[in-house]
Amino acid sequence: MNDPYSTSWHRDKTLFTPGPLTTSLSVKQAMLHDAGSWHYEFHKVVNSIRDRLLAIAGVEREKDGYEVVLLQGSGTYGVEATLASAVPETGKVLVLSNGAYGERIIAMLRLMKVDFDVIRTAEDVPPDPSAVENTLRQNPDLTHVIMVHCETTTGIMNPIHEVGRIVREQGRQFIVDAMSSFGALPISFQDGCIDYLISSPNKCLEGVPGFTYVILRRALLEANRGHQRSLSMDLLHQMEYFEQKGQFRYTPPTHTLLAFHQALLEFEEEGGLPGREKRYRHNHAVLMEEMTRLGFRAHLDPSIQSPIITSFHFPDDPAFEFKKFYMLLSDQGMIIYPGKLTDTECFRIGNIGRIFEHDIRQLALAIERALKIMGVTLT
Amino acid sequence: MNDPYSTSWHRDKTLFTPGPLTTSLSVKQAMLHDAGSWHYEFHKVVNSIRDRLLAIAGVEREKDGYEVVLLQGSGTYGVEATLASAVPETGKVLVLSNGAYGERIIAMLRLMKVDFDVIRTAEDVPPDPSAVENTLRQNPDLTHVIMVHCETTTGIMNPIHEVGRIVREQGRQFIVDAMSSFGALPISFQDGCIDYLISSPNKCLEGVPGFTYVILRRALLEANRGHQRSLSMDLLHQMEYFEQKGQFRYTPPTHTLLAFHQALLEFEEEGGLPGREKRYRHNHAVLMEEMTRLGFRAHLDPSIQSPIITSFHFPDDPAFEFKKFYMLLSDQGMIIYPGKLTDTECFRIGNIGRIFEHDIRQLALAIERALKIMGVTLT
Repeated sequence: MNDPYSTSWHRDKTLFTPGPLTTSLSVKQAMLHDAGSWHYEFHKVVNSIRDRLLAIAGVEREKDGYEVVLLQGSGTYGVEATLASAVPETGKVLVLSNGAYGERIIAMLRLMKVDFDVIRTAEDVPPDPSAVENTLRQNPDLTHVIMVHCETTTGIMNPIHEVGRIVREQGRQFIVDAMSSFGALPISFQDGCIDYLISSPNKCLEGVPGFTYVILRRALLEANRGHQRSLSMDLLHQMEYFEQKGQFRYTPPTHTLLAFHQALLEFEEEGGLPGREKRYRHNHAVLMEEMTRLGFRAHLDPSIQSPIITSFHFPDDPAFEFKKFYMLLSDQGMIIYPGKLTDTECFRIGNIGRIFEHDIRQLALAIERALKIMGVTLT
Repeated sequence: MNDPYSTSWHRDKTLFTPGPLTTSLSVKQAMLHDAGSWHYEFHKVVNSIRDRLLAIAGVEREKDGYEVVLLQGSGTYGVEATLASAVPETGKVLVLSNGAYGERIIAMLRLMKVDFDVIRTAEDVPPDPSAVENTLRQNPDLTHVIMVHCETTTGIMNPIHEVGRIVREQGRQFIVDAMSSFGALPISFQDGCIDYLISSPNKCLEGVPGFTYVILRRALLEANRGHQRSLSMDLLHQMEYFEQKGQFRYTPPTHTLLAFHQALLEFEEEGGLPGREKRYRHNHAVLMEEMTRLGFRAHLDPSIQSPIITSFHFPDDPAFEFKKFYMLLSDQGMIIYPGKLTDTECFRIGNIGRIFEHDIRQLALAIERALKIMGVTLT
């Protein structure tokens, strides 16, 4: 078989996706090492990652009672492990859903046989914090609330801080899926009253995929001791193993972790979150400028649009065919992302990863050329 | 913090462990690419991996009805996902345990609330196939049997083929954890009547860690539709997604997969399983020769010892201290593995990975030197 990545003439295409992303060469080069997963030198790297993640979150172990747990698997595993480790058998979860990732949480809860309620809004409508407040007041059996910060289905920003304060006031626990936002958009654990936050190394922190992490209030996880549902997805014992032995319970993705450590150093070099946010916001502004110039319409109102990933409507011209459009961009070395909306034909463009203004400008030129080849005109 | 892997003077230590292992530079270099997980070029690599794994297993899709499912996470996730996807609520599992990995399966089943029985033998005693036969005859409620092929707790080889034939005769399903043996030791899916086999890319196939895979009889997995317990650990829908969309359901560890594809090409270059087995058996023979020369005693009888990993008793000299011994070897650039036996003080040496005779000879010299420094004599 023809492995396009291992041929000598291959050059990587630029990824305008929600992740896995284009990363720096130095991040990938950090994987040119075989580390012993039981070795003290490797444990130093793991512990440095844990410390740095807490620093990015702006929380401290002793003062604030937060801890971070790394877990093998994709981000979805992190969300499932959090629910499996945080919610007791008698618990009931309120899910705020306005996209595919909210619906995925519902699918998880169903399979785990955990009771839940849903506040569902349209894919372009953020949940209303006062609706959350009413639902919590009327349903004292609800114990946890979970929501997605940046829904990559559309790219919408959901109001986690406003909702979090209500959840805390109402004495429930608050879980945030911050997969595509952590590290690039300010999140206040204290103001947002966040009890559990799940994210991924291969999003705004620009590492490579292979594990997930959860930043959590230690005491809450410990209070749920004895209610774990799965060995692999048990955050409590994973946390205790890190604390007692300095390592993962089961084989960690050693190379991915070495890459992530390098990615964190480069994140700090860029000025930490403010530096990363500035570049992404600029990338996004350039993307909107170029796409508007070309006549594309973004799906979301700018007031709720994240600077991470953007959904654009298909052009209103029968000559437009997404598959062909995608391939014409791929042939020019650029990879965009299909849409995920249930009722509107969209494609998505991500502007995170090791991507700069000139990459966005080049993408716009490639799009212009692809439209010309397809004979598509935008009005 | 001081990251020992990213300093300019760092050279990797050689890993004499059960994995993660020392891999070839070319396998690691295959990770110097960012692949789009939704992109057709990456799907080609994933599908080539799936085809090659079935070829190594010696089974065919159409003719034999086997399929392979890749899953994010460590090998432990593969075992848990198999149990979670194969065993219905009314199922009952017979676990054959003679080590830590057998016990881990029991821990999984407990948390999943799946009913089970155990045939437990001492850590240096393989299960007796006739005991399995009797237990199955006497307990018609048992639906599945699971065992570990090579228990890395000791390095013992368990008789999967003999047990498998009995399980099939008795009309039950047979699950094999072949984490540390697949690719290096002959396994006959037909003779051993194997229904599900779980393994890992970072063992005898010499890839890097980050996912796991299960080779399984399609029809059995499909027959258990509707009995899944977890979204992340659902092998059925993972399989269907590969078949329908050519890709993982959730973000795959793209770099790890590129490395594994390269590792499979190098496996084929070495002559496939016979070539790999030959090198490992030679490595092991040299290890036994050298360790015997130094006066060490292996824990297992040679008739049940695998050529993968070997447990050696601590020298009977109070001057021996494992931690110091470990560090003296580490300082010489070699990493061995601690013991895992419940009642005997042992350390373990693995001889798999990109390891050759000269590496084993050098390890023996380093051990000799460490003993001299510690003032340990072996009789």
